[in-house]
Amino acid sequence: MITTSSIKEYRQLTCRLPRPIGFVPTMGSLHEGHLSLVRAARKDCKTVVVSVFVNPAQFGPGEDFTTYPRNIEKDGTLLTKEGVDVLFAPAANEIYLPGHDTWIEAGGMAKRLEGAARPGHFRGVATVVLKLFNIISPDKAYFGQKDAQQTLVIRKMAQDLNLKIGIETLPTIRTPEGLALSSRNHYLSNDEKVKALALYQSLKLAKELHDNGERDASVIKTHMQTLLSAAGIKTDYISVADRRSLEELNLINEEALVLLAGYVGRTRLIDNILLGKQP
Amino acid sequence: MITTSSIKEYRQLTCRLPRPIGFVPTMGSLHEGHLSLVRAARKDCKTVVVSVFVNPAQFGPGEDFTTYPRNIEKDGTLLTKEGVDVLFAPAANEIYLPGHDTWIEAGGMAKRLEGAARPGHFRGVATVVLKLFNIISPDKAYFGQKDAQQTLVIRKMAQDLNLKIGIETLPTIRTPEGLALSSRNHYLSNDEKVKALALYQSLKLAKELHDNGERDASVIKTHMQTLLSAAGIKTDYISVADRRSLEELNLINEEALVLLAGYVGRTRLIDNILLGKQP
Repeated sequence: MITTSSIKEYRQLTCRLPRPIGFVPTMGSLHEGHLSLVRAARKDCKTVVVSVFVNPAQFGPGEDFTTYPRNIEKDGTLLTKEGVDVLFAPAANEIYLPGHDTWIEAGGMAKRLEGAARPGHFRGVATVVLKLFNIISPDKAYFGQKDAQQTLVIRKMAQDLNLKIGIETLPTIRTPEGLALSSRNHYLSNDEKVKALALYQSLKLAKELHDNGERDASVIKTHMQTLLSAAGIKTDYISVADRRSLEELNLINEEALVLLAGYVGRTRLIDNILLGKQP
Repeated sequence: MITTSSIKEYRQLTCRLPRPIGFVPTMGSLHEGHLSLVRAARKDCKTVVVSVFVNPAQFGPGEDFTTYPRNIEKDGTLLTKEGVDVLFAPAANEIYLPGHDTWIEAGGMAKRLEGAARPGHFRGVATVVLKLFNIISPDKAYFGQKDAQQTLVIRKMAQDLNLKIGIETLPTIRTPEGLALSSRNHYLSNDEKVKALALYQSLKLAKELHDNGERDASVIKTHMQTLLSAAGIKTDYISVADRRSLEELNLINEEALVLLAGYVGRTRLIDNILLGKQP
C-alpha cells in the first residue's frame, strides 16, 4: 500500500493506477463499517484508494473536532490487510489553503435533520467530498447507509454538479447487539454502550409497527420517543421522511426512512432504518 | 464540427476526443472577443469545445435573461470557420434538472462589485462553469479579461476545489475606437455607442494618471467620475482594487485593477484596465 499526504504526489500516481478506481473517503478511526466499504470497493475496482482526513469544515464550534478519535497507524494496518492500494492522509493545510473561500451549498435537503442540528455541517461535508473527488479522480465512491442524510446529500451533489462518479451506498454495520458502528462509539462508557442499544431498538419498533400496518408517522414517532425516553436517551430528532428527498411524511405510503439523533450521556449518535423495503 | 445539445451524447464523444481538450464556455452571440479565446484554444489544444448556453442562474429578477441576444445559427457558422471540433449547446432543462439544488458559493471576492450589484450572479456563474467543466472534462478553459472579476472568481474556485483544469485569461478585445466587445453592445443605439467610448477613456485616464505617478486611488476615481459624468454615463461603481483579491485599495503600491460598471442609456456595461503592468 502506498501512503501519501501530498496532493501532488497522489496526482503523479494517478495515471499509473489502473481503472476503475474505487474511493472510500473516511475520517479514520476505522471500524468494520468502513472496512465493509473498502471490501465492496476491492470487489468492484482494480484500484482502491482510501482517504483519512478529519475535516475541520464539517465540525461546528464546540463540537468534537479536537477530540474526534484518530489512530492513523492502526488505520494503516487495517487497510493494508484489506489490500488497499493507496492511503491518502493529508494534513488540514494540504486540503484547505490559507484563504480557502469556495463552498458547496447543498440545498434544501441539507438544511433538515443533521443540517438543522449542525449548521454548516453539510456545507463542510459536500465541499471536502467534492475536493477529494477532484483530487482522487475515482470512478466509484462508497458511503455507509449509517450516515443516510450524508449519502443523500452527496448523491444530490453528484447529480446536480454532473459528476461522473458512481455513488454506492452500503448497509449499516452493527454490533451483534445492534449498535450501529461509529467512530463516536469510542466516547461511550460500558454502561452507555448498553443504553445506546435503545436507538436501534426504537428503529426496529418503528419497522415492526409499520410491518403490522401502521402508516401514521406521528404514532410511530410517539412509540419510539416513549422507548427512548424510558432508556434515558434524550432525542435530538426523530424523523419519518421520504427516502430520497428527506421531506417529512405524515402518512407513509411508500418506502420511508426513519432517522434519529439522540444523546447517550454526552455523546450524540445517529441511526436510521428503511421502512417498507422487501427483505 | 459536431454540434450536440445532449450531455449523454457529448460524454459518448469524449473518449474519442484527443487531448488536451480546450474549452471556451460562452453565452453565445459570439463576437471577436469570444473568437480570440477560440483561437487561443485552437493553438494550444488538439480538441476545441465551445459551449453556448445562456445560463438563467446568473441573471437576477428583472435582468436581461429573456432579451439577451441569441443567434445560434450565426454562432455555429463562426465556430465552424475557426475549426472548432464540438459545439455544445444544451437547453436549460438539460443543464438544470427539476429540483436542482446544489450551488457553488464563491466566497468573499464574489460579494463585491458585480456580486454586490447583481446578488447571486457569481453563484450562478460558478455553478454553471463547474457543471460545464464536469460535463466537458477539459484540460484548459479560456476566459476573457473583460469579465475580470468572473475570471478571478473562477480561478479561485478552481484552486479551492482542486480542479485539474488550467484557467487561461486572454486580453479584452475592443473596437478600433476602444469599446470593449460585449454581447450587450447589441443593445446600444449608434449615439450610445459613441457615448460608451467614455468608459474606456476613463480607464485610459486612470492609467495615464498612474503612469504619471498618481498613487492615491480616490484621486484617480474622482477624475474618472468627472469624465464619465460629463459623458452622461451613470456609474454603478468605480473600483481600484488588488488585482488578485479584488480588495479595494486606497494607495496603489503594486499592480492594481481599475474596474467600472456604468449605464449607457439603459444598458449596463463593464470594463477594466490593469495599472502598473509593464508593456
